[in-house]
Amino acid sequence: MSDRITIALDAMGGDHGPSVVVPAALDFLKKDRDVDLILVGREEAIKQHLNGRQPDSRLRIVPASQEVGMDELPSRALRGKKDSSMRVAIDLVKEGQAHACVSAGNTGALMATARFVLKMLPNVDRPAIITALPSMSGHTWVLDLGANVDSSSDHLFQFAVMGSELVSSVDEDIPNPRIGLLNIGQEEIKGNDQVKRAHELLTNSSLNYIGYIEGDGVYTGEVDVVVTDGFVGNVALKSAEGVAKMIAHYLKSGFRRNIFTKLAGLLALPVINGFRKKIDPRRYNGASLLGLRGIVIKSHGGADVLAFNHAIKMAKKAVHTNVPERIAHGVESQLEKRADV
Amino acid sequence: MSDRITIALDAMGGDHGPSVVVPAALDFLKKDRDVDLILVGREEAIKQHLNGRQPDSRLRIVPASQEVGMDELPSRALRGKKDSSMRVAIDLVKEGQAHACVSAGNTGALMATARFVLKMLPNVDRPAIITALPSMSGHTWVLDLGANVDSSSDHLFQFAVMGSELVSSVDEDIPNPRIGLLNIGQEEIKGNDQVKRAHELLTNSSLNYIGYIEGDGVYTGEVDVVVTDGFVGNVALKSAEGVAKMIAHYLKSGFRRNIFTKLAGLLALPVINGFRKKIDPRRYNGASLLGLRGIVIKSHGGADVLAFNHAIKMAKKAVHTNVPERIAHGVESQLEKRADV
Repeated sequence: MSDRITIALDAMGGDHGPSVVVPAALDFLKKDRDVDLILVGREEAIKQHLNGRQPDSRLRIVPASQEVGMDELPSRALRGKKDSSMRVAIDLVKEGQAHACVSAGNTGALMATARFVLKMLPNVDRPAIITALPSMSGHTWVLDLGANVDSSSDHLFQFAVMGSELVSSVDEDIPNPRIGLLNIGQEEIKGNDQVKRAHELLTNSSLNYIGYIEGDGVYTGEVDVVVTDGFVGNVALKSAEGVAKMIAHYLKSGFRRNIFTKLAGLLALPVINGFRKKIDPRRYNGASLLGLRGIVIKSHGGADVLAFNHAIKMAKKAVHTNVPERIAHGVESQLEKRADV
Repeated sequence: MSDRITIALDAMGGDHGPSVVVPAALDFLKKDRDVDLILVGREEAIKQHLNGRQPDSRLRIVPASQEVGMDELPSRALRGKKDSSMRVAIDLVKEGQAHACVSAGNTGALMATARFVLKMLPNVDRPAIITALPSMSGHTWVLDLGANVDSSSDHLFQFAVMGSELVSSVDEDIPNPRIGLLNIGQEEIKGNDQVKRAHELLTNSSLNYIGYIEGDGVYTGEVDVVVTDGFVGNVALKSAEGVAKMIAHYLKSGFRRNIFTKLAGLLALPVINGFRKKIDPRRYNGASLLGLRGIVIKSHGGADVLAFNHAIKMAKKAVHTNVPERIAHGVESQLEKRADV
C-alpha cells in the first residue's frame, strides 16, 4: 500500500445500494485527490451506475456475490454470508488492502462482522458507535448510540476515552474535548450505580471531564462528547429525531393553511432553509465504530449521495489521523494513570 | 368531607412559590365551581398575593412553617422538615381533608414524602411519574419520567398497568390506551433483559399492548402510553426539550438576521404562534405520581400561573375518576389473569 489512502465501500449496503454508493464514490473522487476507492459488490450492478467510467487505479471494483439484508440477523449474516459486500469490504481492511471501509448496511451485522474480522483493540471490551449531532453552538458528539445495552462503569469509561480520542483526532476545532456523562437530574436517586461509578472513574482521570449533564445538554453545546450506554443513547437520538419531525410537520401544515400563511411561508423560506441546512442530518452522516483494530464507518441506511459522501470524508479523516492507534494509546495511558494512583 | 372536591396546594413550592401558586388558585376558583382549595404555607406570604380576598370555605389557608428547597436532599426534607408546606399538603390528603395535593417543589422530596406518608397501593412496588407530551396526532403519555432507575420487568409491567388506568381515567378520548414499550431497533442486541421480559409479560396480559416502539414513537402518535424506566424516560424527555429549544433558537436568530427576514418573521408569526401553542409545555403541566394510596400531582418547578392552573385541573380529573382505586383494581385484575394462565 502506498502513501495514498484507500477506502473500501460496501456498494450494496443501505436502502439504495449501488444507486447511491456509486454516484457518491464518483462525486468524491472528483473533489478529492488523495483517496482511492474500492467498490465492493456485484460487478454488473455497480457498473450500471458508473455512467461509462472505466475502473482504474483510483476506482477499483472488488466482486462480492452476496448481500446482507437490512433486517438480517447479525449472527446469520456473520455465519452464512462470507462473500457479502459488507464482509469483503471489512476483509480488505483486515488484509491491509484498504485503510478503512464504509457501509450503509445493517448496523448489527456490520458491528458483529467488524468485531469478528478486525478484533478489538487491547483493553477495550466492546465497540461503541459515535456520531456528531447539531447543537446550539455547532455540534456535539454522542456515544454509544446502540451497540451496547447494559454498560458497566468500565465500559462507560472506555467510551469516554475513545470518544475523546476520536474527537480530538477528527474535529480540528476541539483539541481537548469536554466530556459529559449523561444522567438524570434528581438528587439521591441521581443515576444508577454504573453511572455513579463511571463518574468517579472519569473524575479521577486526566480526561477533560466536565461532569454529569442531562438530556438537553446534548443540544446546548455545554460539552463536546456525551457518554452514555447504547440503550439510552439510541432512545435519546431517536426521540430528538421524533421531535424535529413533529416540529417540521406542524410548521408545514401551519404554513399551508390559507393563502396568507402560504405567502408568509414563501417569505420565511430562506430562513427555514438556512436553519434546515444547519441541522441537516446528511452533514452529520458517517458514524464511527470505535474500539476495533481498523476503521469502519457506518452510513445511515437511507443516506443519499451527499450524505454518503460525508461518510467517506469521515473515513478519510479517521485514516489520516490514525484513530485506532490513538485510541489504543489513549486507553493505555489512562490505565497507566489509574495504576499510578 | 362533602361531595365537593378539595385540593391542597403547596403554596411555597417551585421557583416562584406563592407568587404563582396563589394567583393560579384564585384563577382556578373563578372558573371552577366544584372544587375548593387549601393553600398550605406561610400565612403572611400567602396573604400578600391574595389581593385582599379573604379566606373562606372555598379557599382556606393551612399554615406550615417550613419550606423544602429545590435542591434539598429528599431524605433530609423527609426527616427534618415535618412542618414543610409540601409535607403538610400531603398530610392533608392522608388525613382525608383533601382529595389530592399539587406541588411544584423538588420532585425527589415530593416522591419520598408522598411515599412515606401515603404508602404504596397493594402489589405496586414503586411509584412512577407520568405526563403527556405533544405528538403529531395530539399527545402521548410517557412513564416513568425519573422516579426509578434500573427497573425490573415486573416494575415496567406495573408501570404499563398504571399508565393504562390513568390514561383511560383522565383522557376522555382514550378509553383503551395503546401501550408501547420503549426499545432500540437493532435485532439480536434488541433491548436489555428487563425490556425483553417485560415484553413477554405485556404480550400475555389483557392490556392493549402494541409492542416495542423506538424513541421517535413518542412523537408520531402510534401509541397512547409509552413505558420505560425512569432513567431512559427522563433522558428522552430532556433530549426532546433540548431539540425543541435548539430549533427555536435557530429560527429566532434566522428571522432576526436582516430587515427582510424580520418582515418574513412578522408575517410568519401567526403560524409560529399557533404551532407554539400546540406544543406549549404549560398545557401539559401536571405530572401524576402513580402507585400511591392518594393523589399527588407534580407541577413543573418553573410553572407560571397558566401552567399551575393546568396542574390543578389534572388533580381534579384524577379525583373525579378516582385514579388510585382504578389502579389498585387494574393491578389486581392483571395479577389474577396472570395466575389463571
